[in-house]
Amino acid sequence: MCQLFALSCNVPSAVTFAFSGFSARGGHTGEHADGFGLSVHDGSGCRWFVDDQRASDSALADFLRRHPIRARTVLAHIRKATQGPVQLANCHPFVREWRGRHWSFCHNGDLRGFHPALAGDYLPVGSTDSERAFCWMLQVLRRRFGTRRARGWRSLAPVISDLAARIGRHGRFNFLLCDGEALYAHCSTRLHWLVREHPFPTARLVDRDIEMDLSVANGAGDRMALVATEPLTRNERWLPFEEGELRVFVDGAPVWRRVAKSAAGYDTRAYRHDSTGEVSLNRP
Amino acid sequence: MCQLFALSCNVPSAVTFAFSGFSARGGHTGEHADGFGLSVHDGSGCRWFVDDQRASDSALADFLRRHPIRARTVLAHIRKATQGPVQLANCHPFVREWRGRHWSFCHNGDLRGFHPALAGDYLPVGSTDSERAFCWMLQVLRRRFGTRRARGWRSLAPVISDLAARIGRHGRFNFLLCDGEALYAHCSTRLHWLVREHPFPTARLVDRDIEMDLSVANGAGDRMALVATEPLTRNERWLPFEEGELRVFVDGAPVWRRVAKSAAGYDTRAYRHDSTGEVSLNRP
Repeated sequence: MCQLFALSCNVPSAVTFAFSGFSARGGHTGEHADGFGLSVHDGSGCRWFVDDQRASDSALADFLRRHPIRARTVLAHIRKATQGPVQLANCHPFVREWRGRHWSFCHNGDLRGFHPALAGDYLPVGSTDSERAFCWMLQVLRRRFGTRRARGWRSLAPVISDLAARIGRHGRFNFLLCDGEALYAHCSTRLHWLVREHPFPTARLVDRDIEMDLSVANGAGDRMALVATEPLTRNERWLPFEEGELRVFVDGAPVWRRVAKSAAGYDTRAYRHDSTGEVSLNRP
Repeated sequence: MCQLFALSCNVPSAVTFAFSGFSARGGHTGEHADGFGLSVHDGSGCRWFVDDQRASDSALADFLRRHPIRARTVLAHIRKATQGPVQLANCHPFVREWRGRHWSFCHNGDLRGFHPALAGDYLPVGSTDSERAFCWMLQVLRRRFGTRRARGWRSLAPVISDLAARIGRHGRFNFLLCDGEALYAHCSTRLHWLVREHPFPTARLVDRDIEMDLSVANGAGDRMALVATEPLTRNERWLPFEEGELRVFVDGAPVWRRVAKSAAGYDTRAYRHDSTGEVSLNRP
């Protein structure tokens, strides 16, 4: 199983401390040694780092632990391959452009028999179930909302929640999705979250013998939300997501949530696109 | 004016030596201090590094000079901003997916009055003329060749040459384009190339007091093509492109070239898409 981590902040913040703990799980304190990746969104700008080496000792991961890159949203993933060989094209996050924004996505889980009809709007480069799911979600969103920027996360979130529930019928589908404006985090089986704000504590990592006085790096008005498969620090109050829950975070704050009801007999393979590009559903 | 660099190899090779010279132009021996970027393609896998700092002293550039990343094709760009502010979203290369491959693009030049009709297939994230040109080229290619992988560079090259000539009516349009299979290099005003193969020389950089015995790192069967705005080494025979010339490189060898005739009164704004998605041209 892979592991997920995300950070959403109201001011550009460095992810070096949290990534030091998280990346230790990529071969050191965890078995997730089949590659890793980060997407770093700051407004519309996006940096994308992927490597098919172990995050615990890769030179790139070492660089990312030592050199703070300040950004408003960061997604990170360490991989334990379940579908698709260990290679660069299969490392998360995956990145695509929609509506003039970079969208990045990473997944923890395993989808069985998930082969949706991909019309070509977005096609996988690698061979993972995860990238297939990402491409299909973007395809549905694009056909539903068009390619011009009109409405933001308030419109998208319910649809993303629906899609997550439908794909989740094929297996575990914990994921993080981000366009630099909002962070969408979905729990199918296991995910935790936390908001840090003033007064900031001294936090102690679970995976490395490091602690950090967070009040030094953060001002009174700073706020950040963290999401992780397993809590990253020992002395902070991480909250579990519910199964089927999608949460949206903007500027370091949770702004929306929904726990999806169990999906009603849908099968993603049954989706068809009519001539208008709208998505219709043929129940099996 | 920005500067371009590309490497195409028949075996995965490191770009550290050439990048050491090239990146010196990003603030040290050159004025291109408004950001830099690399795309590193190895088969379908792609790494993408961009930074809005000076390439001569950015921590990321330093990492890339010290840690060899072996790949078959590399594109690099150092920026001197002409259109669009200095920010991450305006740093080249730009990356998009088409036909299940990552395509990367960087541009040297300045396009005036270039505002093509972008239907939404690909939209710019930043505000440069360069990213607009890239999105429009991919849009035309996608509508002409579809989204499924069928034909390779032999089919694409003549169309890319046509598009380059048409866009080139708006200004200088030197560019590099790559999908990890072929490297397309177009000269509108200034670009040089070189093929290295056995026996490999000791090469001396133009921009740094460094020389390297290339026979140490390369075997008898290795071959690589280098493309750069200005020659990177003092003692190798760099050949100038002709104005209007597109060259395609595969596995380190030049495989195709065409020098476009002067464009015949086309204006890219006059392109319209008919209902089949094919591109037709309305002469102004």
